[in-house]
Amino acid sequence: MKAIVADRAFSLEEGNHFYELDIDTPQPQDKELLVRVEAISVNPVDTKIRQSPVQNGPRILGYDCVGTIEAIGDNVTLFDIGDTVYYSGSPDCQGSNQEYQLVNEQLVALKPQNLSNIEAVGIPLTALTASETLFDVFGISHIAEDNVGKSILIINGAGGVGSIATQIAKQYGLYVITTASRDATVEWSQQMGADVVLNHKEDLRAAFKSHELAEVDFVFCTFSTDMYYEVMIDLVKPRGKIATIVAFNDKQDLNLLKNKSVTFTHEYMYSRPLHKTDDMIMHHRYLNDVTANLEAGIYQPTTNKVIEGLTAESLYTAHELLESNQMIGKLVINLIND
Amino acid sequence: MKAIVADRAFSLEEGNHFYELDIDTPQPQDKELLVRVEAISVNPVDTKIRQSPVQNGPRILGYDCVGTIEAIGDNVTLFDIGDTVYYSGSPDCQGSNQEYQLVNEQLVALKPQNLSNIEAVGIPLTALTASETLFDVFGISHIAEDNVGKSILIINGAGGVGSIATQIAKQYGLYVITTASRDATVEWSQQMGADVVLNHKEDLRAAFKSHELAEVDFVFCTFSTDMYYEVMIDLVKPRGKIATIVAFNDKQDLNLLKNKSVTFTHEYMYSRPLHKTDDMIMHHRYLNDVTANLEAGIYQPTTNKVIEGLTAESLYTAHELLESNQMIGKLVINLIND
Repeated sequence: MKAIVADRAFSLEEGNHFYELDIDTPQPQDKELLVRVEAISVNPVDTKIRQSPVQNGPRILGYDCVGTIEAIGDNVTLFDIGDTVYYSGSPDCQGSNQEYQLVNEQLVALKPQNLSNIEAVGIPLTALTASETLFDVFGISHIAEDNVGKSILIINGAGGVGSIATQIAKQYGLYVITTASRDATVEWSQQMGADVVLNHKEDLRAAFKSHELAEVDFVFCTFSTDMYYEVMIDLVKPRGKIATIVAFNDKQDLNLLKNKSVTFTHEYMYSRPLHKTDDMIMHHRYLNDVTANLEAGIYQPTTNKVIEGLTAESLYTAHELLESNQMIGKLVINLIND
Repeated sequence: MKAIVADRAFSLEEGNHFYELDIDTPQPQDKELLVRVEAISVNPVDTKIRQSPVQNGPRILGYDCVGTIEAIGDNVTLFDIGDTVYYSGSPDCQGSNQEYQLVNEQLVALKPQNLSNIEAVGIPLTALTASETLFDVFGISHIAEDNVGKSILIINGAGGVGSIATQIAKQYGLYVITTASRDATVEWSQQMGADVVLNHKEDLRAAFKSHELAEVDFVFCTFSTDMYYEVMIDLVKPRGKIATIVAFNDKQDLNLLKNKSVTFTHEYMYSRPLHKTDDMIMHHRYLNDVTANLEAGIYQPTTNKVIEGLTAESLYTAHELLESNQMIGKLVINLIND
């Protein structure tokens, strides 16, 4: 079967070091599913891992998948052969940039029946990241009424994670303030349900004042954490919570958290699968909840760019688009028309 | 009435700049209580504020008090004249190093009836800090059974905060690992209820291995945060939580939190009173719970050193003892024998 692989870390300036390789189709063990990959999406994490050393080459990237189960391990209990599923997976396994992929069933959910593959495949990684941040890190209630009166600032509302985080936060009762800067991103973030969209090229403290916004309970940073570190602390309530999914370039002064007794989390959605935690099945549960809300028409897909066909060239193009930092919503690659 | 004041920041090497001043007795407004101070305790925060610029001198330190209510403001509802109470207060008001002090009733609780003043006065600041860390920051349940199976590492178990934090954590079902280094501090921490006491002069990672201890759910640092920053991240579980009450000397690499998606909080017990949060009454509630557990004989007092009489000289001596970093448990000053 075909896989798109790389044997080494590379920057896009070095040219395209992805290539197509014919490899054996793997066999599922234990709780693994063998999935025939029908669509994938490309995330910032792909571009970061692409530039990190290859431990056990050739490496297959790809951290979102929609596909059909072709075979199952002996201890699979949640799914059957023939089910169409979606998932993000784990970076300690080979990714979805191949024709068949193995994945642990605890990380998987049934694909929403009302969505096409290219709509559904934009969801898993971003929705899992947003769900962990809202429910595990910020500790919001699963009962929306309990969250009414609480507020969140999402920095970069029009990105992949920001787009679904806005929708989940709204559905669970939060007041949602996002940031964006271009007309197209402002409009997109409003479509995702943001109550207020601020221009993140202006000083956000001033924007809070001019919009008469109070300090928020939660801040979720999906862009340029260093730039927003002090601003986030200024804009969060006493005993408020801040999370980021973007690595820092510089060391920071943690004493700034003291005066308001602020909590800071470096959210990393892969910590559960990488460390094989006892509660890894939370990914299955979070995705089930997202599926239900998509099927109910409450959440809308965030796919905004589709590339047809997975090849070394199309994957390189996708990475170029991601690294341009101009993407709105999600970029997906379609392998098999559904 | 008499107060012990200072007009300037000073280090102990500069000599004793505390002095006794006769000032008017203040009158309670709104939700304020006027308390006749009977005993105080001295905490590390006193030595830190003593060395910070005086904004509105003369400044009166003192952040723990036991005393009797002599007068109340018009909107007081929780207490009556004649009640004997204990509290920490707030650093934006004059402290307890005076004969009469004003305090907001929401920060106050009835003194445990079975304790002497010098036993009770060692409790409030430390118990509030430990309660906020355990319940607000770590989010443990108020039902002990729900917490069984969870574990906490308390760095410096024999300090004031460590001593009461150990007891509260045990009472609410946690498995408690502490650190200490001298025979006397090891024995003290065991008396406070620690399940395991590790030597913090050894590498804690190695100590965890030799004691066959698994990664903990929570780490609470009450000593030398810079030294333990990386160790704490290594010893906490994936998605675990770390809190400190000790300021950093250096900037730190927040990316180290990412792999295990760790949460870090700079706990500061005064963020509620300083920012006049809507839930400031949590201090009243936390202290009520501590009073109930002290009266039930479940918690034991942590006072370990008593100085008789509040004077400029005795206060200077108390600050010297605090800054020696050799204190076990709490140091208190007795003003009026009960």
